[in-house]
This record gives sequence, C-alpha cells and structure tokens, in this order.
Amino acid sequence: MKIAILGSAGMIGQEILSQLNAGSGPEISRLIACDVISTPVASPLAERTVEVVGTVTEPRAVAAVLDQRPDCIIHLASVVSGEAETNFEKGYTINFDATYAMLEEIRRLNASEGYRPKFVFASSIAVFGPPFPEVLGDDFHLAPRTSYGTQKAMQELLVNDYTRRGFIDGISLRLPTICVRPGKANLAASSFFSNIIREPLAGKEAVLPVDESLRHWFASPQSAAGYFVHALTLDFSQMDHNRALSMPGVSATVGEQIEALEEVAGTGAVALIRKEIDPVIEGIVTGWAPGFTAERASALGFKADADFVDIVRKHVTR
Amino acid sequence: MKIAILGSAGMIGQEILSQLNAGSGPEISRLIACDVISTPVASPLAERTVEVVGTVTEPRAVAAVLDQRPDCIIHLASVVSGEAETNFEKGYTINFDATYAMLEEIRRLNASEGYRPKFVFASSIAVFGPPFPEVLGDDFHLAPRTSYGTQKAMQELLVNDYTRRGFIDGISLRLPTICVRPGKANLAASSFFSNIIREPLAGKEAVLPVDESLRHWFASPQSAAGYFVHALTLDFSQMDHNRALSMPGVSATVGEQIEALEEVAGTGAVALIRKEIDPVIEGIVTGWAPGFTAERASALGFKADADFVDIVRKHVTR
Repeated sequence: MKIAILGSAGMIGQEILSQLNAGSGPEISRLIACDVISTPVASPLAERTVEVVGTVTEPRAVAAVLDQRPDCIIHLASVVSGEAETNFEKGYTINFDATYAMLEEIRRLNASEGYRPKFVFASSIAVFGPPFPEVLGDDFHLAPRTSYGTQKAMQELLVNDYTRRGFIDGISLRLPTICVRPGKANLAASSFFSNIIREPLAGKEAVLPVDESLRHWFASPQSAAGYFVHALTLDFSQMDHNRALSMPGVSATVGEQIEALEEVAGTGAVALIRKEIDPVIEGIVTGWAPGFTAERASALGFKADADFVDIVRKHVTR
Repeated sequence: MKIAILGSAGMIGQEILSQLNAGSGPEISRLIACDVISTPVASPLAERTVEVVGTVTEPRAVAAVLDQRPDCIIHLASVVSGEAETNFEKGYTINFDATYAMLEEIRRLNASEGYRPKFVFASSIAVFGPPFPEVLGDDFHLAPRTSYGTQKAMQELLVNDYTRRGFIDGISLRLPTICVRPGKANLAASSFFSNIIREPLAGKEAVLPVDESLRHWFASPQSAAGYFVHALTLDFSQMDHNRALSMPGVSATVGEQIEALEEVAGTGAVALIRKEIDPVIEGIVTGWAPGFTAERASALGFKADADFVDIVRKHVTR
C-alpha cells in the first residue's frame, strides 16, 4: 500500500510512522511524507519514503504528493484551534481552502483516470458546541463555537460529499483532545491539559487555569495514531453515508487527571501544580464536550486508552 | 433601510418585492436588486431601486451590490437541488464558492470601515439526511445526502462563524419545499409536489411519481417570502450561537395534498392526476424530512401556512 501523510513531521504523524515501523497496520510499499519541515523517518520505512517539503496550501506540494498516486492519504495538516481563532485568514486558508483545493485536484484525476484514494481526514470534537448532555451520541448536531471547529465541520461535509460522489473513499476521524502532548505548550487552549501532567513528571511547576471539576475527553498520542493506522486496513464501505466518526476516548475530570498523576508519580508531582484560574481559558474550555458514546467507531474496531492512568503511563514509558 | 436581494428575479425574490410594495416589513429607502436577468420591480419600490444584472459568481456584480453598503443582504441566489446533483462543479461554484467570496469581501469592508450588514441566507431542509424521526427537532444533526444539501450546510456554518466573529449579523432560514410553485416544472426533484396541484387546477394532466403515503414539509411561496420579510425587522441578537433555523411549515402526505386539491377544486381536478411511480424520484424524495418542530423559529415569530388547503387557496387566489 502506498500511503501519503500530510503533516508527517507533527506529533501524530511521527507516532503513526513509529507504529508502522513497529509492524502495525498494512505493508507499506511507499510512504509519501509531506510537511512544512523535513520529516524524520526511521528504517525500514526510510528506504521507501518520498519526501515532499511544503505546505498543503502550495499547489506544487500537493501535486508532488498526488503525482505518486497514493492509495491512501492521511490528512493531518492543520493549524491548531488557538491559532485559527487569532488568525482568521490563516485558519481558513490552511484548515479549509487547502483541503477543498486538494479534493478538487483528486476529482480531476478521478475524471481523467479513475483515481479514487482512501482519504483519512483528522477532524476534531471541536465540531460540536454547547449546551452538551453528559455524553454525546453519534448523532449529536454540528454546531461549532470556534473557527477551527467550523473549518473541521466544513471539511467533514466535503469528505462525505466527495465520497458519496465517488471521487474519494473518505472518512473523518474526530480526535479527542490529545494528552499528554510531548514537547512544549502550543497555541491550543487545551494546552494545560497536558502541561499539568508533563511538567510535574519532569520536576517542573505547571499552572492549572480551570477548576478541577471540568470534565473533558482525551486520547494519548499513541491511541490517536492508532486510529489512523486502523483506518488504513478498514473497509469503509461498511459505513453508512455519514463518514464522520467521533473516536473512542477517555472521559476524565481535571481532578481525575491529577489523581492519575499521583498514582503514577506520587504526591510530590501533584504539589508542582499551581492553580491560577484564567477566565479566558476557562470560558473557552467549558464549551468543550465532556464525553462521547463513540458507538459507531467502537463497532468498527477503533480503540481508546483504558483510562487516564493508562494515558499517563504511556507518556512516561514512551 | 437599504436592502439588497440576490436572486431578486426568482420566485421568492419577486414575492418579497410584492409583499414589501404592499406595505409589509420595514420602510425601504433603497433596494439593490441583483439577478442574472433584469428584475421586474413595481412601484413604489421601483423608484428606489438600483439594479445589478449579473451572478453572485461575478466579483463585478458582488462589488456593485456591496458598493451600495446595504444594511441587509437577502441571499437567495442558488442553483436547485437537481442541477447541483447533475452538475457538481456548477453547484459548488454558485452555491458555495460565491457565498464564501462574498463573505470575504464583507470581512474586508468590516476591517477597513466597520461595515457589518444583516445577512439573511436562504438555506434548506436538504441539510438533513435520513434516517429521520417522525418530526425533526431543532437540534437534529446535519448529515446531507446531496451536494445541494452539503453546500447549504457549509454556508450555514460560514454564516454562523462570520457572525460570531462580528463580520456580519447573519441568519440562515431553512426553507421547506415550496409549494405550489408557479410556472413550469424545474430541475428540482421536488417538482412534482407542485405539478400535481398546479396542473390539474389549470385543467391539465399531472404525473404523480411516488406513493400517496409519502410525507413531506411545505410552505407556500407567500409564506417563504414572509420569512425573509419578517427577518428584516427581527433582532437577531436574541438568538443563541446557532443562527440556522428550520422554518415552520405544513407537514402533509401526498394523499393529503390531493385531498386539499379536491376540497378546493373538486374531483374533476383530482382525476387529472395520473400515478406512474418513478423509482429514481421516489428514491430521492423518500430521503427527505417529513416534518419539523421549528420551535426556535416559531418563538421568533416566523409563521407557516395554516394547512395544505390554505396553501392551495393561496395559489388559486394569487
């Protein structure tokens, strides 16, 4: 199978490569790795990799990817929620226009030679907006409250329609908030969910800007990458017309996150968390979904972490 | 109030002009009438009209409309469902790209001079897809089954986000199927709903391509225009973040449509309906919604026809 990964140098892209190299998923005959920076690729995949350095907004880069006629395109390239909110134009250009233009290119190839790749799009639970029930079912209505969520919802609609028309064989995976994110804090308002685990584990202080009662929906980077690896071998035709799926995850309050940290790393780690309510962040994240049934995705074999302790342990042992 | 109507020469555009000329709605200081053909405008509006002949896909035409800085833009311009399905590219170009480009122009004017018009977008119940409950609530999930419905859903999402960001003060009105459409059959798969009333009333035969048990959701052209006239004076700020509203309508089976025809025009009219099942049309329209609560719209003062007899009478007496 020839696969292309757009956003291959990012956190999830790198984790997908790591799982494929470890033997998960299908046999990969060629990898087209596309990102704005050079993508680190280890062996054995390294020997089968064509690298494209460029962004999805550059027709040259997209053409270089499509020239390889990948059997499956995993589309992870995106600006994060905070940046899409502060830079309206950049958000729409990268998170919507680029995908629409790429789907149009694929449609032209479909018309001329019948090309019809699998297309696995990284969507987000940000497509949903409050008020929320305790647990959201698979048919909860799309009503995003951010530009990021709007862009993701519009892309899901395109993926469904281009699939229905036979131009692609698409699926949209709505990712939970990824936790524990490695590296430094990014522009996502969700950054603190990872900071309060990652920083204390490294012996550093972390600021908690919201109340411990806040409940949210999580997946480890490993599970998130696992959704995409699973999608590579999944037969999408068993799904109904709505190809957008809320992925299974772990529902936890911030308090339960901290309990899990204590279980893995002790009270010393917990003592490094300093609570300092930030009304702006609290205002944003209380508008986020607390949990999902994810029944359709579970029935299709997508898998979540066991619980939040599992999520913390995966970070510690990576 | 300066208002622009995009699609002013069409069925609903003309009915809006007629209601405004009859004294409904706000005082209109200027009308910008934009359509691909010349728009017939009667007095007194005629004396206050600036006409723009062109389509929403032409930047020149959109610029000519926005040059007038209308206080409210009523956006009716669209290709119908059947055409959006047979001509994929034309559907997206007119039903999505043009609206997105226009909203971007408005955003630029917002940045440079604070321009922020009311924006009343004609959406459709085609944003919903089956399986359906008997009656759809206001929070039924967006899952269109046509390119037309996809385009309408994407535009609703843009209207919500551009409103939330303060670039427009928008609202999307999801119209029921319009019945009885005057004139000839068009490319919409819904055409027969009108044909089986309009043609027998004119002494002509009409073909019924579906079973009488099919239930669907209707509004007269007069009620549909009334939604837009009502929106002109409505304060949108009383709405929550989701500015897309399913309009109130009349739920009726095809059998109930025919009973209403009999009540208004007698058994002779009904005898002119010839049943001839068309599996293609039946396949399309059984995927359409049977009815809506329309609670939010009703609470905001939007009004439906009384029943299907009322709809037939409005056609007869127009």
